[in-house]
Amino acid sequence: MNKVDINFKELASLQATLKTMQEVDIAEFLIKMEPEKRTIVMTMLPKDVLAEVFAELPRDLKTEVIESFTNPDLKDLIDELASDDLVDSLQELPSNMVTKLLHYVDSDRRDSINKLLNYPEDSVGSLMSVDYVAVKKSDSKSDVLKKISQSPADHEHLDSIFIKDDKRQIIGYFYLADLVRLQEESLDSIIQWNPVKVYTHDDQEKAAKLFNKHSLLSIPVCDKEDRIVGIITADDIFDVIADEIHEDYSLMQGMGTTESPYLETGVFSLASKRIVWLLVLMISATVTGFIIEKYQAVLSSTVALAAYIPMLMDSGGNSGSQSSTLIIRSMALDEIKERDSLKVLWKELRVGLVVGSILALVNLVRMMLLSQVSINICVTVSLTLLMTIVMAKLVGGLLPVLARKLKQDPAVMAGPLVTTVVDAFALVIYFKIAQLLMGIG
Amino acid sequence: MNKVDINFKELASLQATLKTMQEVDIAEFLIKMEPEKRTIVMTMLPKDVLAEVFAELPRDLKTEVIESFTNPDLKDLIDELASDDLVDSLQELPSNMVTKLLHYVDSDRRDSINKLLNYPEDSVGSLMSVDYVAVKKSDSKSDVLKKISQSPADHEHLDSIFIKDDKRQIIGYFYLADLVRLQEESLDSIIQWNPVKVYTHDDQEKAAKLFNKHSLLSIPVCDKEDRIVGIITADDIFDVIADEIHEDYSLMQGMGTTESPYLETGVFSLASKRIVWLLVLMISATVTGFIIEKYQAVLSSTVALAAYIPMLMDSGGNSGSQSSTLIIRSMALDEIKERDSLKVLWKELRVGLVVGSILALVNLVRMMLLSQVSINICVTVSLTLLMTIVMAKLVGGLLPVLARKLKQDPAVMAGPLVTTVVDAFALVIYFKIAQLLMGIG
Repeated sequence: MNKVDINFKELASLQATLKTMQEVDIAEFLIKMEPEKRTIVMTMLPKDVLAEVFAELPRDLKTEVIESFTNPDLKDLIDELASDDLVDSLQELPSNMVTKLLHYVDSDRRDSINKLLNYPEDSVGSLMSVDYVAVKKSDSKSDVLKKISQSPADHEHLDSIFIKDDKRQIIGYFYLADLVRLQEESLDSIIQWNPVKVYTHDDQEKAAKLFNKHSLLSIPVCDKEDRIVGIITADDIFDVIADEIHEDYSLMQGMGTTESPYLETGVFSLASKRIVWLLVLMISATVTGFIIEKYQAVLSSTVALAAYIPMLMDSGGNSGSQSSTLIIRSMALDEIKERDSLKVLWKELRVGLVVGSILALVNLVRMMLLSQVSINICVTVSLTLLMTIVMAKLVGGLLPVLARKLKQDPAVMAGPLVTTVVDAFALVIYFKIAQLLMGIG
Repeated sequence: MNKVDINFKELASLQATLKTMQEVDIAEFLIKMEPEKRTIVMTMLPKDVLAEVFAELPRDLKTEVIESFTNPDLKDLIDELASDDLVDSLQELPSNMVTKLLHYVDSDRRDSINKLLNYPEDSVGSLMSVDYVAVKKSDSKSDVLKKISQSPADHEHLDSIFIKDDKRQIIGYFYLADLVRLQEESLDSIIQWNPVKVYTHDDQEKAAKLFNKHSLLSIPVCDKEDRIVGIITADDIFDVIADEIHEDYSLMQGMGTTESPYLETGVFSLASKRIVWLLVLMISATVTGFIIEKYQAVLSSTVALAAYIPMLMDSGGNSGSQSSTLIIRSMALDEIKERDSLKVLWKELRVGLVVGSILALVNLVRMMLLSQVSINICVTVSLTLLMTIVMAKLVGGLLPVLARKLKQDPAVMAGPLVTTVVDAFALVIYFKIAQLLMGIG
């Protein structure tokens, strides 16, 4: 039996099914197929659909497609690819393949594609598309309509049409929708001045924040001279928003930031990013180790105290990271201003008192019923639990605020420091209370 | 001196400045003003700008505006507010004020506003706008253009124009941009069939995933009978994406999910959400407590061992939560399929071996140089460190996968369980190695 088992009836029904499918779904469908069948299915797709499906394929399948396509087919594919999709694909591929592909890029497009390829990773320039429409204030409505229909820009690039002056500097924009529905009005009356804009070398995060703040569907991108050179659309921003948040949490957990996709990053590269944080934890451990050594007399006289160290540290660590996460998140969202940090801290402290009191009480009852230790130890552990939780909220809340004051990234500074400081304080509180209540040391 | 110090020259320049400002920025500017001045500035704004600025104000200022406005002004404001902004505002306000405001809503709008108010929180229905344009397949281009210009829909609602059949069921859509730029083509030729859609009672997260997957700028919302009843646009999705991710991390840290904004949530309500997780930690502590008690002989004979418990637990806890975070994130993003979970686990294990070995070596050197303890203790601690880190990666990676298999939310299950299991294992490893190497117990 032949591996490529073509049944023409099935083929016709497949073709009908493909027509009803979204590009992403076709891509997922192709990924699961055998290579031989995949090639056949791809030849059945209309050119424009093929280009969008190609953009959704993983790197290895893109390579496969490029190697299996004839040169004219490859040129058609590249012509159909939107500039940002083309650049994204090129950035994924090995350099010999990039050279081959650039060869097929139309000469009038090659300059802009080359420029896009050279913007730093995570910059606005590397995210933008060059398919936008900009007109002059003096253009007539029919000039504008002509420019729109001649542009390679897709619907998402056409929500706003930009207005540039004679120096190509952007001075305004209008919505295509307004042009359509307010047909009797002059172009001038629907133009909005002072557009929100970003620059090619801005961080993508800045663009994401502006999209969210101003509820944008697109934003113009300018070079240093305020000349419009590209556009970013809302559908490009979803991933940026998600990545930025995940990055913050990664930093807080000492995982560093990964520029390349996780599965494609090497073991040693991942390890090198995490080792720093774990080394910091080890230095912190020297502190906690010293504290325990200092109070060794207490511990020797009552070894039972050691049994509660893990619980106290876990509770403290968790309470502290809850507070620091909340503060860092609020700061990242720009939801909470500097003055509100204190409000959050105050609230966290009260939450800590409520949670700590309940836990301390439950712990006291539990220990008195279940464990064989003296009442003094029960009270020591419960009191420490309460004080540790409140202290941890204070430390976890204060450190990110302090980090920001010192112009450090709160996410980087908060994670390891909170653990270090909370651990040390919790142990000191524990042994001090033990000394006081049990008269040791 | 009068508190409201009006200088007409200043007023004119203020008016000019306001014209150049974005709505969000005007809202921020108003928030910082004294109430008397605020009222004056607001009367200077054009009606449509005022409505958008109002939507951006915090709850207390919205209340202030409603109380200070005359009835006709209030009606104008409500008429200008987009339906989703109006519903959002109503949901923030106390019920007596909602009744007052609903009174001013045009009777033909009141039904749809009431319906929007009744969708469950976090549902697609509560997020959608009812300002969309849907036409029939048989409509002529001029019919379509007429419907567009008569609709209250804004530019963001007009990116896609939807096609409904005779039963109002949605069957397709076309881009307004295509209507403009492909003027010589028939309406039929630009229609795309089988649109991606969501239902009013779907979770907002589902909509967010579809926006991201299919790079959408808008999505039609249907009732149970597939009839179009609303639209969600990309600018509404930014917050949903961010909230969903923060929610996952909150769950992992045992903070529960907060439906209402943090600063407006009561201390006891916040405390009640966190107490569950901390109680789980306490039960976990019973396990670690038992383990330490069981090996008390080891600890009594070598109290110095206690000094390293905090470091071992911190390293283990951190390594475990790094792995679980990575796996949960990948699962949430649908980036990594079920079969890839094992790949991630395998990679995490190797990262753990590399990181663990380096740390164990550094620790060995550090302890031998700096501490007074025996070589046996140095080796015990270093070996435990290596094994704990590898074990933690395994536990942190496996538990979320297991949670998903058991149809539990990985984020909820992973957090507390990882800490519990890693702590217990780390201690057992520590004491077992100590017994073996030092011949105690």
